[in-house]
Amino acid sequence: MNILVTGGAGFIGSHLIDALLDAGHHVQTVDDLSLGRMENIRHLDGHPRFRFHRQDLLERSALSRVFREGNFQCVFHMVANSDIQAGARQTDLDLKRTFLTTFAVLECMKEFGVKKLAHASTSAVYGENDEVLHEDIGPLFPISFYGASKLASEAYISAFGANFGIKSWIFRFPNVVGERATHGVIYDFISALERDPRRLTILGDGTQSKPYLYVKDLVLGMLFGWAHSEQPLNYFNLGVETTTTVSQIAHFVVDAMGLKRVELHYAGGDRGWVGDVPRFLYDLSKIHRLGWKARRTSDEGVQLAIQAELERRKECR
Amino acid sequence: MNILVTGGAGFIGSHLIDALLDAGHHVQTVDDLSLGRMENIRHLDGHPRFRFHRQDLLERSALSRVFREGNFQCVFHMVANSDIQAGARQTDLDLKRTFLTTFAVLECMKEFGVKKLAHASTSAVYGENDEVLHEDIGPLFPISFYGASKLASEAYISAFGANFGIKSWIFRFPNVVGERATHGVIYDFISALERDPRRLTILGDGTQSKPYLYVKDLVLGMLFGWAHSEQPLNYFNLGVETTTTVSQIAHFVVDAMGLKRVELHYAGGDRGWVGDVPRFLYDLSKIHRLGWKARRTSDEGVQLAIQAELERRKECR
Repeated sequence: MNILVTGGAGFIGSHLIDALLDAGHHVQTVDDLSLGRMENIRHLDGHPRFRFHRQDLLERSALSRVFREGNFQCVFHMVANSDIQAGARQTDLDLKRTFLTTFAVLECMKEFGVKKLAHASTSAVYGENDEVLHEDIGPLFPISFYGASKLASEAYISAFGANFGIKSWIFRFPNVVGERATHGVIYDFISALERDPRRLTILGDGTQSKPYLYVKDLVLGMLFGWAHSEQPLNYFNLGVETTTTVSQIAHFVVDAMGLKRVELHYAGGDRGWVGDVPRFLYDLSKIHRLGWKARRTSDEGVQLAIQAELERRKECR
Repeated sequence: MNILVTGGAGFIGSHLIDALLDAGHHVQTVDDLSLGRMENIRHLDGHPRFRFHRQDLLERSALSRVFREGNFQCVFHMVANSDIQAGARQTDLDLKRTFLTTFAVLECMKEFGVKKLAHASTSAVYGENDEVLHEDIGPLFPISFYGASKLASEAYISAFGANFGIKSWIFRFPNVVGERATHGVIYDFISALERDPRRLTILGDGTQSKPYLYVKDLVLGMLFGWAHSEQPLNYFNLGVETTTTVSQIAHFVVDAMGLKRVELHYAGGDRGWVGDVPRFLYDLSKIHRLGWKARRTSDEGVQLAIQAELERRKECR
């Protein structure tokens, strides 16, 4: 199949491309490298079934040209502003990078008759809800601009689908960790301990507990859901049943770096930042019933991610 | 209170202004008159507590000036592309007129420290859902661009509220009818019968059944909810318990126009157009518990609206 992956030089997008190429597909990607990194796809240089376009999705005529020449059967839309905290400082960041990029892709799909869309959504669409988060829960009041722009994207995918016969697969990701991640708590803790190996400040009270899904498991989950569901609009939580607290991540990082006597300082409060959802219980029964489960636990995913990041930094030195 | 009503020259916005002025507030409105009409607010010429700005909400510097000089305590955001069918023909219409106008208002509220927002949302955010539509239902997959852009607006209101302490009241409107409406089934039927008084084509099979809320009841409902709820984010279905079928509306129009022997022709199918939701059951218990109910039934609202539209046309001749 001819597949366009948007944001393919990014953390998750690049793993997705690896998996799609492994499965025999022809893959092109559009990435403006604002968050994506060439090193994530350097290993694909010269691959006969892969093509990279350095291109901003919001430059419509250039995006149209990629679609016109690409003859795509399916788009995996992975582009987003993945830096959630930055979205609160600059309120049009997620609007443009997360939502309007989705709109641009949908417009091109309509124009060029591409009928299948797999979309990277997020648990943040649920906002702060104390109930078990299954896919059909409401109300949906996201508290971050990231969550808001992803919910806006879902809404537009639904409307384009209903009006123009675009079949879609919406995957709501939890926190995702692993090789090629560029930010997040693991990244931040390692950076902080490299600067000061005696002291680590942890936002919140450290008990914030989330499921961290290993990126390769996530990609397998997406491809499984995509291959095995055929509604006009398919939507799944993707995740892992176990969770890891922020304190536990700190201890994993300290251990992996071989540090002794690190003083852990807790900034306090029940969350890392405004817009952060301190804890949630993610219902995965829908994707489990379909036949997919994550292979690694949350703790295993976190530890794999820590190892990968430490190795990357060693190589960069 | 100093209140900004966006879209105040429109159908619902102009009734809202009348009610806010009656209650003693100082009201300004911004309307670009793309859908609004000066005749809707002509009766307010010279009113000492009213001011009109002809202004596109998407011209940010001009909107900022209105906010800077207005010293508003609250915004009622009523601007939207109200022509749902047009949204499917021109997919960026609702994006700009319905969603990005909301974003512009939120940005200005943040910039100028306005802490209260009442927002006109819609039952269309629920999409096509066979269940009873109470406010906390999910999933939310709108099938029209109007519904999608209103859900996107709700999502952004939620995020701005959580990040910048803006208290909000979201009102999900059903079909609204009454004086000053500019389009919709009543308007269309009257126009069609003026052109050909012997024959009326009805989209769908005529059994599409919806609650039609009389506009003055709607405005009272908004003001009641706004005055009597104090959560950081308040959200209500507004509506009327009864419904009216499209066939019934046709008969009301034929009777009110004094026509005989009109041949009713049904175009067929279960809905008026793609993106139309053929029927739904709207749960109003939340606003009812708070203490508000619509005074007029759906049939009464429709009949008041037909009378008003026929009188307006008589005056225009």
